[in-house]
Amino acid sequence: MSNETVVTAAMLAIGDELLSGRTKDKNIGHLADMLTISGIDLKEVRIVADEEDAIVEALNALRGKHDYVFTSGGIGPTHDDITADAVSKAFGVPCEHDADAMALLAEMYKRREMEFTEARQRMARMPRGAAHIANPVSTAPGFIIGNVYVMAGVPQVFQAMVDNVLPTLKVGTPVVSLAIACPYGEGEIGTPLTAIQKAHPETSIGSYPRYVGQKFSTEIVVRGRSQAVIEAAGADVRAMIEDIGRRKDIAENHSADA
Amino acid sequence: MSNETVVTAAMLAIGDELLSGRTKDKNIGHLADMLTISGIDLKEVRIVADEEDAIVEALNALRGKHDYVFTSGGIGPTHDDITADAVSKAFGVPCEHDADAMALLAEMYKRREMEFTEARQRMARMPRGAAHIANPVSTAPGFIIGNVYVMAGVPQVFQAMVDNVLPTLKVGTPVVSLAIACPYGEGEIGTPLTAIQKAHPETSIGSYPRYVGQKFSTEIVVRGRSQAVIEAAGADVRAMIEDIGRRKDIAENHSADA
Repeated sequence: MSNETVVTAAMLAIGDELLSGRTKDKNIGHLADMLTISGIDLKEVRIVADEEDAIVEALNALRGKHDYVFTSGGIGPTHDDITADAVSKAFGVPCEHDADAMALLAEMYKRREMEFTEARQRMARMPRGAAHIANPVSTAPGFIIGNVYVMAGVPQVFQAMVDNVLPTLKVGTPVVSLAIACPYGEGEIGTPLTAIQKAHPETSIGSYPRYVGQKFSTEIVVRGRSQAVIEAAGADVRAMIEDIGRRKDIAENHSADA
Repeated sequence: MSNETVVTAAMLAIGDELLSGRTKDKNIGHLADMLTISGIDLKEVRIVADEEDAIVEALNALRGKHDYVFTSGGIGPTHDDITADAVSKAFGVPCEHDADAMALLAEMYKRREMEFTEARQRMARMPRGAAHIANPVSTAPGFIIGNVYVMAGVPQVFQAMVDNVLPTLKVGTPVVSLAIACPYGEGEIGTPLTAIQKAHPETSIGSYPRYVGQKFSTEIVVRGRSQAVIEAAGADVRAMIEDIGRRKDIAENHSADA
């Protein structure tokens, strides 16, 4: 009945430091926000260590299932930065120093009067045939091969690369959402909310508990791909909240009478 | 040569709100910290939506590969809380109201003079034969089936459940780490650090760039399963830093002479 289009994505965050707890990831939430706004559904995220087999396996699982895969981490100059090698292996192409990336980096280090060391040259390595993702923060580019977008792990650089990439992607009908504050806890709204979800199958209704001042309340979020469908479900949610309030008032008046 | 033992784990974080960006996950980093301290290696994390097939597929992939799998999210009272059903399906057992959990919740709601609604009763559902994980914050228990530990998504509850679970787990030789502040950027240390990593294969050496006040520096973290191996590699890292400093001094003196 609808002509909405759905574009899906996965993210692969790479780095021992995310799994040891040393670094608390900030990129997943940022990408989730940006994709949601853009009309791309983030369907799955994986975090793996700096281990070639783990990266190759995860990447090959994800890139066949989704329109886009975005990676973060492992493209710096040190021995533990093995993402370029792993992505090349996943695609079965050689990983080599890209001429344009070498030129960009050589120019930058010359300007800064710094030596273009062998380690720094590692940052120019990418799968043969990859396209660049510009890095306005620290020059060393990310890269694109097939439907895989390989970006840095440092949040400032990751975010700048995401900004450069987003306008080039195909997008679907964006998911719009409606948040409704509900003064009752999930235990009180669960049953009527299930009925509302069933009556509005084109929406996805989530409820998120809050516990403030010894009292439970809920934020109910209705998501869908048109304003009309979320407003229709939202009206039922508001009616449910009013109905619970009315029944509570009657119950309280009854006990006041007793 | 060593009698170290390795225990591995994976985490599965469940919830549409993590993938839409509405909620920024706090549980992954917390679990990573706690497992690292305890001597359990977190090897992989996945985040999936509140979709039964996605949960079942991820859970079955992870539980065969690791000693433990920890999940977060989807065990509340509303229709979008489907983790108990999905875990039951993954294990091929019925999902049913657990008698002990029903008794716990009934008692708690009676004490609080609240109705034990059908929605609240959902929180007592778990795979047949599962054991409880106590929830000191809001009563509704998590549960254990096989090597899978199913916990709440609300961070306070998740953390309390992790605290209850950790003392019951088998653990490996903990990874110890040594952090060394290095005043030079990754591009300068990359090549010598690679040589140090090769000379100390029992350690895992990570380097994490910092960019403060227009100047790059690095934190070098040496990880290993004994103090002796990380100290040996750490000594080489410190010698490398001194060596770079000496060469820089000579270079600066030369240019001052010129």
